[in-house]
Amino acid sequence: MPDTLTIPFHEMIDVFRSILLQNGFSDERANTCAEVFATNSLEGVYSHGVNRFALFVQMVREGHVVPDATPVLRHATPSLEQWDGALGPGVLNATIATNRAVQLAKQNGLGCVALANTNHWMRGGYYGWQAAKAGCVFIGWSNTIANMPAYGASDVRLGNNPLVIAVPFQQEAIVLDMALSQFSYGAMQMAEMRGESLPVFGGYDENGKLTKDPAAIIKSGRTLSIGYWKGAGLSLLLDIVVAVLSGGLAVHQISQQKAEKGLSQVFVAIALERLQNYPGIGACIQNIISDYKQSAATGEVLYPGERVMRKREQNRQAGIPVVQKVWDEILSLQTITKSVIDQ
Amino acid sequence: MPDTLTIPFHEMIDVFRSILLQNGFSDERANTCAEVFATNSLEGVYSHGVNRFALFVQMVREGHVVPDATPVLRHATPSLEQWDGALGPGVLNATIATNRAVQLAKQNGLGCVALANTNHWMRGGYYGWQAAKAGCVFIGWSNTIANMPAYGASDVRLGNNPLVIAVPFQQEAIVLDMALSQFSYGAMQMAEMRGESLPVFGGYDENGKLTKDPAAIIKSGRTLSIGYWKGAGLSLLLDIVVAVLSGGLAVHQISQQKAEKGLSQVFVAIALERLQNYPGIGACIQNIISDYKQSAATGEVLYPGERVMRKREQNRQAGIPVVQKVWDEILSLQTITKSVIDQ
Repeated sequence: MPDTLTIPFHEMIDVFRSILLQNGFSDERANTCAEVFATNSLEGVYSHGVNRFALFVQMVREGHVVPDATPVLRHATPSLEQWDGALGPGVLNATIATNRAVQLAKQNGLGCVALANTNHWMRGGYYGWQAAKAGCVFIGWSNTIANMPAYGASDVRLGNNPLVIAVPFQQEAIVLDMALSQFSYGAMQMAEMRGESLPVFGGYDENGKLTKDPAAIIKSGRTLSIGYWKGAGLSLLLDIVVAVLSGGLAVHQISQQKAEKGLSQVFVAIALERLQNYPGIGACIQNIISDYKQSAATGEVLYPGERVMRKREQNRQAGIPVVQKVWDEILSLQTITKSVIDQ
Repeated sequence: MPDTLTIPFHEMIDVFRSILLQNGFSDERANTCAEVFATNSLEGVYSHGVNRFALFVQMVREGHVVPDATPVLRHATPSLEQWDGALGPGVLNATIATNRAVQLAKQNGLGCVALANTNHWMRGGYYGWQAAKAGCVFIGWSNTIANMPAYGASDVRLGNNPLVIAVPFQQEAIVLDMALSQFSYGAMQMAEMRGESLPVFGGYDENGKLTKDPAAIIKSGRTLSIGYWKGAGLSLLLDIVVAVLSGGLAVHQISQQKAEKGLSQVFVAIALERLQNYPGIGACIQNIISDYKQSAATGEVLYPGERVMRKREQNRQAGIPVVQKVWDEILSLQTITKSVIDQ
């Protein structure tokens, strides 16, 4: 395993913010963006937090992500709005779109924001927590660059199009945040680095045989969709719906570009306070979870999001574990930019 | 394989209708209900068409399904309505809820109907086709009786909660209709009857080992959710959201009853004509499908719903294949009731 160090949450925010400020982000936008990247790390999703930050800055520097671009309303119906993300930072566009969906939900019961021309939202679950903390059910998804084959095919034409569903629970939330591939590339690379097999089939080797060997899958590029033909079909439909609702790019169009940019996303919020059964909703969810927790299993049965809360607490106390090389690269972004500015 | 015969589509409708008329259905409701059951069979989903009809009539006769009950509006927000299905026939309640969602979508862009206290909708895809033929994107799901374990557990506490996503395409539709278990019990029973293995793992045997043996899975009851922990998490969230939005029963409550009744369902429609990019939507979907069809595969790569269209044409020409025993049982329902009436 590589050398790691631990970084306190607020130190991580400060470092991210200082770099963003030097790369075209306003004060407020640098704050929000740094907070999202650091929170994703605090909550254990390093692959879409600290481990991805340097690449994000590179995307900004190369002009793929426009730091000061904000979403523009293109078309409104009473319950669905179509916005153009203007190639702004994905995490900022997504927090804005989520806020707008929540606002519409509080007004109308349900609100839907479809967002074209945006960028990678990093960890979709963040927006699930955001909406749930505002008292809403949340359903959202994004398309991606092609990274998964159709069922039975050997070339990648589908995205793993992450799907997020969240509900408020106690003072926290239950948040499902899942890509439609059985494993992310991040998870497979981690297993490869550790010399471990995947716990279940994760894709095909170059001979088209199902395998648990992460190296073989990374080599073939043939990742497995969840549930075989089912996840592949779901991926196709999520891509069609998000492209249709947003008027933005579909997976095949995103994949023709040099970088993964100009994504399409959907954000749906439903305000619990607008439902007739509002007073009983907390108990309804509690009863479902209580039954679920009574499952006969040797280990503890966790609900989606429960691990996130534990990791958050753990990392808040002990600091966020970061691979030394990753942190060094981030600090070098700070230095390089400073020296450029100092000239 | 058992003896089969073929029944023309319209003969099947007539037989179903005559039985429904003798079991408390009005003329119009018997027509619609018979048409849904026969269409599901015509389109190849026999398990939720002709093969389930006798059980449906039994549910009516035992009072679990109330033939003349219609949904009642309980609460309305501008974009989401909460209806009570009054334990009416699931297929009728679902066609009514879909129509209402489509109507709201044409008015507001997006319409959502949450339906409590309904019954089994048989084949969810039917409502996807219905909304798509009316020019809408459709997203809907139902909960079920518990029939799937939490990930790592040995007892069933989750439903396989079928999810439907549909979009209009050419003069037809693209319709994903999938339960969250890797295989339905119907598919496993069919494989067992034929002495065949499942093509991929379908669940666990009684020793907790993954298996392709349908008999071992039916015996243990430990069906596999799609994508292991992912499908289990999705099932839990779909149940929570549908129970919260409808104010109806969750899986654990349905499972405490003697029969699978009083289900909760959600129907979302989005009217394409209300979107800014409406004129380009046909081409957008066509381009996605064209790219998908270029997948490198030895066999043909089909999109969800394509097999349904082919089967529909085939069965329209050759008649609907029905197991002799199944058809005899249906005809006996007709006869028994007639003799009772004749007395």
